[in-house]
Amino acid sequence: MKILIINGPNLNLLGKREQTIYGSMPFDAYLEDLRKLYFEIQIDYFQSNIEGEIINKLHDVGFSYNGIIINAGGYTHTSVAIADAISSITSPVVEVHISNILAREEFRHKSLIAPKCKGSIMGFGYDSYRLGIESILLINKKEK
Amino acid sequence: MKILIINGPNLNLLGKREQTIYGSMPFDAYLEDLRKLYFEIQIDYFQSNIEGEIINKLHDVGFSYNGIIINAGGYTHTSVAIADAISSITSPVVEVHISNILAREEFRHKSLIAPKCKGSIMGFGYDSYRLGIESILLINKKEK
Amino acid sequence: MKILIINGPNLNLLGKREQTIYGSMPFDAYLEDLRKLYFEIQIDYFQSNIEGEIINKLHDVGFSYNGIIINAGGYTHTSVAIADAISSITSPVVEVHISNILAREEFRHKSLIAPKCKGSIMGFGYDSYRLGIESILLINKKEK
Amino acid sequence: MKILIINGPNLNLLGKREQTIYGSMPFDAYLEDLRKLYFEIQIDYFQSNIEGEIINKLHDVGFSYNGIIINAGGYTHTSVAIADAISSITSPVVEVHISNILAREEFRHKSLIAPKCKGSIMGFGYDSYRLGIESILLINKKEK
Amino acid sequence: MKILIINGPNLNLLGKREQTIYGSMPFDAYLEDLRKLYFEIQIDYFQSNIEGEIINKLHDVGFSYNGIIINAGGYTHTSVAIADAISSITSPVVEVHISNILAREEFRHKSLIAPKCKGSIMGFGYDSYRLGIESILLINKKEK
Amino acid sequence: MKILIINGPNLNLLGKREQTIYGSMPFDAYLEDLRKLYFEIQIDYFQSNIEGEIINKLHDVGFSYNGIIINAGGYTHTSVAIADAISSITSPVVEVHISNILAREEFRHKSLIAPKCKGSIMGFGYDSYRLGIESILLINKKEK
Amino acid sequence: MKILIINGPNLNLLGKREQTIYGSMPFDAYLEDLRKLYFEIQIDYFQSNIEGEIINKLHDVGFSYNGIIINAGGYTHTSVAIADAISSITSPVVEVHISNILAREEFRHKSLIAPKCKGSIMGFGYDSYRLGIESILLINKKEK
Amino acid sequence: MKILIINGPNLNLLGKREQTIYGSMPFDAYLEDLRKLYFEIQIDYFQSNIEGEIINKLHDVGFSYNGIIINAGGYTHTSVAIADAISSITSPVVEVHISNILAREEFRHKSLIAPKCKGSIMGFGYDSYRLGIESILLINKKEK
Amino acid sequence: MKILIINGPNLNLLGKREQTIYGSMPFDAYLEDLRKLYFEIQIDYFQSNIEGEIINKLHDVGFSYNGIIINAGGYTHTSVAIADAISSITSPVVEVHISNILAREEFRHKSLIAPKCKGSIMGFGYDSYRLGIESILLINKKEK
Amino acid sequence: MKILIINGPNLNLLGKREQTIYGSMPFDAYLEDLRKLYFEIQIDYFQSNIEGEIINKLHDVGFSYNGIIINAGGYTHTSVAIADAISSITSPVVEVHISNILAREEFRHKSLIAPKCKGSIMGFGYDSYRLGIESILLINKKEK
Amino acid sequence: MKILIINGPNLNLLGKREQTIYGSMPFDAYLEDLRKLYFEIQIDYFQSNIEGEIINKLHDVGFSYNGIIINAGGYTHTSVAIADAISSITSPVVEVHISNILAREEFRHKSLIAPKCKGSIMGFGYDSYRLGIESILLINKKEK
Amino acid sequence: MKILIINGPNLNLLGKREQTIYGSMPFDAYLEDLRKLYFEIQIDYFQSNIEGEIINKLHDVGFSYNGIIINAGGYTHTSVAIADAISSITSPVVEVHISNILAREEFRHKSLIAPKCKGSIMGFGYDSYRLGIESILLINKKEK
Repeated sequence: MKILIINGPNLNLLGKREQTIYGSMPFDAYLEDLRKLYFEIQIDYFQSNIEGEIINKLHDVGFSYNGIIINAGGYTHTSVAIADAISSITSPVVEVHISNILAREEFRHKSLIAPKCKGSIMGFGYDSYRLGIESILLINKKEK
Repeated sequence: MKILIINGPNLNLLGKREQTIYGSMPFDAYLEDLRKLYFEIQIDYFQSNIEGEIINKLHDVGFSYNGIIINAGGYTHTSVAIADAISSITSPVVEVHISNILAREEFRHKSLIAPKCKGSIMGFGYDSYRLGIESILLINKKEK
Repeated sequence: MKILIINGPNLNLLGKREQTIYGSMPFDAYLEDLRKLYFEIQIDYFQSNIEGEIINKLHDVGFSYNGIIINAGGYTHTSVAIADAISSITSPVVEVHISNILAREEFRHKSLIAPKCKGSIMGFGYDSYRLGIESILLINKKEK
Repeated sequence: MKILIINGPNLNLLGKREQTIYGSMPFDAYLEDLRKLYFEIQIDYFQSNIEGEIINKLHDVGFSYNGIIINAGGYTHTSVAIADAISSITSPVVEVHISNILAREEFRHKSLIAPKCKGSIMGFGYDSYRLGIESILLINKKEK
Repeated sequence: MKILIINGPNLNLLGKREQTIYGSMPFDAYLEDLRKLYFEIQIDYFQSNIEGEIINKLHDVGFSYNGIIINAGGYTHTSVAIADAISSITSPVVEVHISNILAREEFRHKSLIAPKCKGSIMGFGYDSYRLGIESILLINKKEK
Repeated sequence: MKILIINGPNLNLLGKREQTIYGSMPFDAYLEDLRKLYFEIQIDYFQSNIEGEIINKLHDVGFSYNGIIINAGGYTHTSVAIADAISSITSPVVEVHISNILAREEFRHKSLIAPKCKGSIMGFGYDSYRLGIESILLINKKEK
Repeated sequence: MKILIINGPNLNLLGKREQTIYGSMPFDAYLEDLRKLYFEIQIDYFQSNIEGEIINKLHDVGFSYNGIIINAGGYTHTSVAIADAISSITSPVVEVHISNILAREEFRHKSLIAPKCKGSIMGFGYDSYRLGIESILLINKKEK
Repeated sequence: MKILIINGPNLNLLGKREQTIYGSMPFDAYLEDLRKLYFEIQIDYFQSNIEGEIINKLHDVGFSYNGIIINAGGYTHTSVAIADAISSITSPVVEVHISNILAREEFRHKSLIAPKCKGSIMGFGYDSYRLGIESILLINKKEK
Repeated sequence: MKILIINGPNLNLLGKREQTIYGSMPFDAYLEDLRKLYFEIQIDYFQSNIEGEIINKLHDVGFSYNGIIINAGGYTHTSVAIADAISSITSPVVEVHISNILAREEFRHKSLIAPKCKGSIMGFGYDSYRLGIESILLINKKEK
Repeated sequence: MKILIINGPNLNLLGKREQTIYGSMPFDAYLEDLRKLYFEIQIDYFQSNIEGEIINKLHDVGFSYNGIIINAGGYTHTSVAIADAISSITSPVVEVHISNILAREEFRHKSLIAPKCKGSIMGFGYDSYRLGIESILLINKKEK
Repeated sequence: MKILIINGPNLNLLGKREQTIYGSMPFDAYLEDLRKLYFEIQIDYFQSNIEGEIINKLHDVGFSYNGIIINAGGYTHTSVAIADAISSITSPVVEVHISNILAREEFRHKSLIAPKCKGSIMGFGYDSYRLGIESILLINKKEK
Repeated sequence: MKILIINGPNLNLLGKREQTIYGSMPFDAYLEDLRKLYFEIQIDYFQSNIEGEIINKLHDVGFSYNGIIINAGGYTHTSVAIADAISSITSPVVEVHISNILAREEFRHKSLIAPKCKGSIMGFGYDSYRLGIESILLINKKEK
């Protein structure tokens, strides 16, 4: 079983950036925990600040992986192109957010990619990613 | 550990109503499975079509339960009063939806209660409730 | 043949409330006339000021009656939940209004329930109800 | 007793055009049925694709007929001039639509002529016209 | 010197229609007074309820007359085509309205043709036409 | 002299809920003070979280009481039905709010019921209720 | 007979300011011509850049003059207070503009004062004032 | 104890202007009554039609008076500058309106100054001022 | 093979009207060139300033021609009725515009008929028509 | 003669992605046909999912090529930067779309780049590219 | 060389008002520093709370000074009249703000005067004025 | 002292692109002048057309440089991701624009990054960059 986690722009600064919103643990440390917890799954990780590279990655894995977890960061609210990429591929995609984007600034309330995803999970801190993995496991079980 | 699941208006017809969107399994059957799976948790259930009764219930349990999972149905999009009730209580509240409401009619895109909840989970069918329980377990673990 | 007429909030004051808009005849008197006119039909009547009770009623009769005539009053413009209830049931539902809501205040121009109903009839005073019954007779005839 | 039915643009193609929405019976056939049913009434019929000709017709009959039933087709949503014509005349005008325009494309939700009509009837197929005639009979009875 | 007065839809009913807004004098009577007053000018008159005929007329006279006074009635608010016609011709066009359209319903506040006219005069009853003639005299004097 | 105070949804938690906005004194204690202060007036009190029960109450007392003070809580911003109820009755109704709703979240700026009330008083903490009683005394004096 | 012309902010620079829009003749020179032309009328003139002084002036003359011609300049689009002043007084007020404000920037399309005036005249250069005087003569004749 | 009442533009015409909305009693007469009623308080009065003079006055007294009652008239809806002045000073400011501005024209529904005031009182005729004084007494008592 | 070119309002003035936008060649001359170039095709031409006549024409040829090229002029932006006519017929319809309407005034940006056409071609001067013919040839080839 | 075809994000999946909208032929195969058909023209091809790379390419060729055909995919609706790039260069740019974007989701109706292009062609499947080439040939002929 | 600094409403309270936003240094002290720093320039200063007086001042100096620095305070967001004044004069005008108005309340995001100024500088505390002077020096150098 | 200047998309064409707006001097030449003028500062320069590379650069230098001057070009109006990057770093960032973006097309009026910057400077041609450097010097002085 193969799952890819995609982190969008500025999420490479997690643990460093705006700690009151995102907490102070580096994402790497969390990812390690996640991999230990789900040792039977191959959890790949990709981060990029470049919209088009995220699209490239979605194309690369989107016809073979069992699921993709995407936190598109700021592109969540502006990228029709990533939304199109998600609806172009066949792997199930789940949108996650660390914070509750609906409780932040107005311009963060609208997700362009959400309508193209299987589902969305937001507001649980890093645990949004863990719930994302759980959701993909459930989706895969149901589709068998 | 005590968790309450609240289902809002029309969700009493699950398994019967609009099966292409919501599936054909009665919610009761699913709930039973859930209780078996999480046998160590007391999972209470409340359904009402009356906005104010949902508020009453939130007040009743909202200072003592470990978590509340709410699918407010149509009130999701119109009820400032339920949103106020959620921010009036101290138990963590998680919003769930069976379908991906952002991929449906325009008027379902806006959730008035989301900004008051810990987080939101939507689009995973009945499994949104299961992920909701997982999320509450994680919230409780973190807060200890 | 069984038809239910549902009157929403404040319509219990008909004949008493805002007579320049709604006229001065009590609705009961009109209902009696209606029953005499259509003596071969069982015309039930339900009025409630509580949104959720209207939903309950729609659920109760909505799989067995030949038609439902609903004047949702103020809930016409605000209730996603009643709209959902209408699309959850199988009996044909016809929306009626005593006054021409499109010729009144701006906030009355939008009906949330109209898109879920078979059709709408408005502006004919109490006779909107009579036309509603006629419409249900025609719908039933066509579907046979 | 004299009633005029006015059909606006493209309604001359009824029975031929977009049959999933409008059905496959030619309007002429339906009109014949209607005249038989209401043999005691003179039911005139006018169809035009030209906005101004509809206005001319409204002026012609609008001070002498007992009622006018208008389905303004696409002009429903764009014609201030027809709306003005309706409020310029004294015969009662009833708006009808074959389909439920509120359940179709966004731009069909707004009727410019509705606020100027006695009432509106929509969604009952061709039977909207029959209910329109019934409504005019009731209006005439009430005004005597 | 030749001036054309164009009256748009429903203005053929002036003196008959909605007398509280437009007064009870027939327009013909007023026109006669006007012609007497400005006996040295050829004042032509054209009324049509058909948008395209108004355009045809504008084309006919719009390269030779000294001025055109237009009250486009309901087309004022909806006709890009008449606005285009006005900017296609070379005679100066002045927009007039009997009532103060800015003090009436919201949808009458926007004039599509105003930006294409030399100027606008509204609110003076029939005397808006007289002021329109005065304005054209002044325009012609200035341009010499 | 009889006055009714109506408190809407979540206001049963006053003194307990969001104390930075609403203060920490229970409403009951304040009500007692109020009754002592205006001992010559019968001050009734009604609280409900159910929209329709508030309407029922308005109907019950709205033709006999000298005044009604309503703080409709979250329904202030969403309930056409309560607004209709207020305009259906004859007792003067005064809207009060504890906080200055215009200085809070955007969705609290619009009061649907305000246009139907005699007047509005907001921002004075619990003393908004006291000023409400004063206002009703003044209204009653003026109407004599 | 007494008429007041009020010019609002920046109109003291006429003849000097933005000559492509307003022309290069000083307003004083034009005013002199106007007074000669209408020698039998007392034409007073008032210019101020201060919103409140324009209101003061309207109050001063607004119960005794036969008419007021106002070009409120930039206040046209922003001043509820001047609009209120116009509806507070009894002299007929006519709005004039030198340019066709509807053909300029978007924010100049809306006149707050227009709905409170007898009528509006715009786009005729300085001659808008002359037509304004004509309009007041006609209003006075009609009201006699 | 010192309180200032500020009346904005056109309120100098009270008793004279639009009597159906504002009543026919001159404000001076009412003020005299008020001063008699609250003889132990120094009630100062200031009226101006000039936005900036109202700001000047707010600055003058805003650091020493016990309270300010402001009816900003038309500036209520347009003046960011007065709103800024209110939040620049330390005396509590209470907004009052004679009529219920929320039940009048659309453009009167929005108060720019309300969010900066302690509270708002509207709709009680001249008695809004009296309730304003009561509110300031209560604010001063609470702050002691 | 039969193709119809429809030109809407004011396009009869091409070569004469607003030459900076539309060029100075009469459309007739261009049409002649087109017919020579595509001598094997029957290219019919229809121009009308009357919305309803364009609808009539669409009905006439819309079930037998191989393609229709329409430049609806000002009706592009306002005519639901022409849009309905296009979706009522079976011949493929291609929308063309001489200028790039998206680079002109705001109100020209929205085409009501575009969603009902096979495709749109705009901005190439008269050559938009030639490309329109090419497009119809390609559509016909594909459908064989 | 040199023409560049630019395909934006996700268009590398053509023939693979959403076949009901875009068809099942790979773009490469179509491109080959196109090159054969226009063997006398050098047709270059560039595809990228990265917004900035598209801009780079436009800069590279935009001062020397005879024409550029761009299908900016999802960036059509969001990229001011690509629009700026188009207006920064001198080669004529033509916008093409495979599907009729105006008949799809609301957010696809607005093209930011269209106003900067010579013209737009949409809705003809892959043949939109062929018409694009035709249009560039015509533009080049006209400019000689 | 002569430069005028204009401070609009409430800016006379700088150093006193809302110190968390504007700091606690009186503007006078800063101005003195500025004059010392640019001793070779005549730096005049004008502050007024009255919109029209700011306009008067702009007229006075606007044809002779080398530059004007304006912080229009609350009038920034509401005054078409000041914007008109700026475009009526010939001296270059630079807009400054102490705080970053785009990071404050929504209603402060729109500057009506900015489009009429040479440029804007905001967010640098009092140093915005110093940068304003620098900018005027650069403008004057460039124009020589 | 180290300052970075970032130029966004299409600004590599400065001196070449749209010279009426941006002037004809290449940016390199200006940069050289700037470095001479501020020889004691290390002025680095970075230009990219790729949104994500600008984010990368901001991350690289954003925790060590004394200041960053950014002209984000077209991304100014569309990039939430760059705005997030700016608020993720600690170096002060100043936004500059060559032209006055508020005086250009509507879509350029909104800057997404402005609220995240220390301040903004626009409209002074290339000198906006020089003022940007001045502003950073002042910010650094103040923070010491």
